[in-house]
Amino acid sequence: MLVEVPKRAEVVGTLKIWDVQRIIKLDADEIGAIAIKNIKESDIKEVVSRMVIVIPIKNERIHLLEGVLKAIPYNCPVIIVSNSLRDSQDIFKTEVDVVSHFHNLTSHPLYIIHQKDPAVAEAFREVNYLEILDGDFVRDGKAEGMLIGTIIAKYLKKDYIGFIDADNYIPGAINEYVKDYAVGFSMAKSPYSMIRIHWRHKPKIIEERLYFKKWGRVSEVTNRYLNALISSITRFETEIIKTGNAGEHAMSMKLAEIMAYSTGYSIEPYHYIYLLEEFGENGEPKYPEAASEGVEIYQIETLNPHLHEEKGDEHVQQMLVDSLATIYHSKLVTEEIKKKILEEIEKEPEKRLILPPIRDMDVDKFVKVLEESSETFLKFEKTEGSS
Amino acid sequence: MLVEVPKRAEVVGTLKIWDVQRIIKLDADEIGAIAIKNIKESDIKEVVSRMVIVIPIKNERIHLLEGVLKAIPYNCPVIIVSNSLRDSQDIFKTEVDVVSHFHNLTSHPLYIIHQKDPAVAEAFREVNYLEILDGDFVRDGKAEGMLIGTIIAKYLKKDYIGFIDADNYIPGAINEYVKDYAVGFSMAKSPYSMIRIHWRHKPKIIEERLYFKKWGRVSEVTNRYLNALISSITRFETEIIKTGNAGEHAMSMKLAEIMAYSTGYSIEPYHYIYLLEEFGENGEPKYPEAASEGVEIYQIETLNPHLHEEKGDEHVQQMLVDSLATIYHSKLVTEEIKKKILEEIEKEPEKRLILPPIRDMDVDKFVKVLEESSETFLKFEKTEGSS
Repeated sequence: MLVEVPKRAEVVGTLKIWDVQRIIKLDADEIGAIAIKNIKESDIKEVVSRMVIVIPIKNERIHLLEGVLKAIPYNCPVIIVSNSLRDSQDIFKTEVDVVSHFHNLTSHPLYIIHQKDPAVAEAFREVNYLEILDGDFVRDGKAEGMLIGTIIAKYLKKDYIGFIDADNYIPGAINEYVKDYAVGFSMAKSPYSMIRIHWRHKPKIIEERLYFKKWGRVSEVTNRYLNALISSITRFETEIIKTGNAGEHAMSMKLAEIMAYSTGYSIEPYHYIYLLEEFGENGEPKYPEAASEGVEIYQIETLNPHLHEEKGDEHVQQMLVDSLATIYHSKLVTEEIKKKILEEIEKEPEKRLILPPIRDMDVDKFVKVLEESSETFLKFEKTEGSS
Repeated sequence: MLVEVPKRAEVVGTLKIWDVQRIIKLDADEIGAIAIKNIKESDIKEVVSRMVIVIPIKNERIHLLEGVLKAIPYNCPVIIVSNSLRDSQDIFKTEVDVVSHFHNLTSHPLYIIHQKDPAVAEAFREVNYLEILDGDFVRDGKAEGMLIGTIIAKYLKKDYIGFIDADNYIPGAINEYVKDYAVGFSMAKSPYSMIRIHWRHKPKIIEERLYFKKWGRVSEVTNRYLNALISSITRFETEIIKTGNAGEHAMSMKLAEIMAYSTGYSIEPYHYIYLLEEFGENGEPKYPEAASEGVEIYQIETLNPHLHEEKGDEHVQQMLVDSLATIYHSKLVTEEIKKKILEEIEKEPEKRLILPPIRDMDVDKFVKVLEESSETFLKFEKTEGSS
């Protein structure tokens, strides 16, 4: 694949945020060019073979899940964490059927689990990670699902973890996201790296394209305040952040396990806040190895447009409020930024619950509980002789 | 890539039409499975390296052309035949700029020419192929553009030629089409083969999706009559044809050079008519080598949806009339089918002009004229040492 060389980077403490890089060509032979980086297919394959894809899913159209699975390249394992309905209409069961059928056809390694499975809550209690629980169950929420996926990915001893949403209409775009992640990791110099997808602007297909406009507004506002936060630290105005709300992102496992997750709709902007708080300031670092290696964020602009299900106005408004809440409650925030955020959303935003890093969690113990007690944790692994 | 094994084929004379095969996975490692064929990446690359892509273009949004170019895999040469405006607003010039810039960035080999270039008409006169001319110029029309592209492709001594429309919003889908072509050619047993793309049904993105509905209706009607035609020959009812109006298709050069092209909007259904006329009947074949090898048509259902520019109702109605005209005027048609077509479109359709095969054309002479006299024929080839 051909990708632009990043024009510049913003360095804040030991955190390095690279400017957006556009994908220039999906498949390329070896060529040499100025201002373009050619990531070889063999390198992409090598990174993908060390990656796992986590798909949080909640009542999505089942055909979309099928399309996503068909698009994930090579044998990169997929972990599906479902929070779909399990009442009279058992959507989870349909998901399991699709996953099982797809595995039978393709031998692609797949894992699926239900977020509300009592065994999952039991596993969290067993490893003493109680922040994710609400009574007898894991709480609802995408961050919670992503964390479950991350734990299983760590158990699988994978080096990279990528997140893909299940509501995407374009399998070719999903295929690209995974390869874009690999492009980013191939460029990374630090073992602590994050790749964030910047969606290419959607072309005007039809007159009614409300959702994309609003999503665009949330992104624009979130990016503006994140950039203001960085500017207030460095004392140099910047516009480096273009992926504040990037749903599609990937991390090296080394970074994922020291990452904290904000709940609600603020997972993605909180990545920036957390990394700025942990690595952006001088002082005693909590993770000295990471601080010594440095943390890198790459922002990759896709070639494909992003076309997904309309989630409605309420969702969009909540995303804006949640995004700004993480900035508002950051220990790095200035009074001026707080004032502007209040003007933007008209009332003080609630502080979101933060899920702490899983680095010190005994993931083997966690998975052992699942294997012994879970009725929804299903593994579809490559069998001997199937390859 | 993983593709379904075709369930069956319809054999009419020495023409074999395979049933639709779905793409099951875009990138796959080696796996063995029942009812699935795994086309290795190395095989796809090998076929693509012997392929050329022809893009007929007429006043499309320039960003769409950019997306198409970025999506064509590897170094598969691209021939753009433009019939865009050249008056006060010189769209062709913009196209040349995009092509030139893209070549500079990526070294991808590209050719571009304008359909109305007087040198193109001169070249046709020189090789005594006058059917395509209207006075001093080549006529307007997509078939005419495709034929120019085919001649240049033959001159480049490529084994396969694939057509891609420039009005596609999803680069990932275009990337897939080219690989789908390669999948088809990898399966083909005859050197005379054609691959036709069957678009996967579009998911409901928005309420207004008029164009796709109508396009679907044209396809449904065209397929019904083409299948009726085959049934009338074989005396066995069939529904084998699902790609009567497939805009995206590819041919081995051996087949492309003995193919005749119908003008107007009937190019694609006419492929079937022509092949049925030439190879579907017993009798003295015009192309005995091809008849002896047999001709194969593969129909591949894409994983990606097809999302392209709305061309309007008139275009859709004309496509229906033109499609049925090729069936109505076929020497194979029965009185019963003619009667039904008349009921469908309410008046006798005009016979479309047919462009004869180029097999016996002196393509070197044709291109020599272009090289000497054309001001729009531009070659952007790989330079020494650029790889």
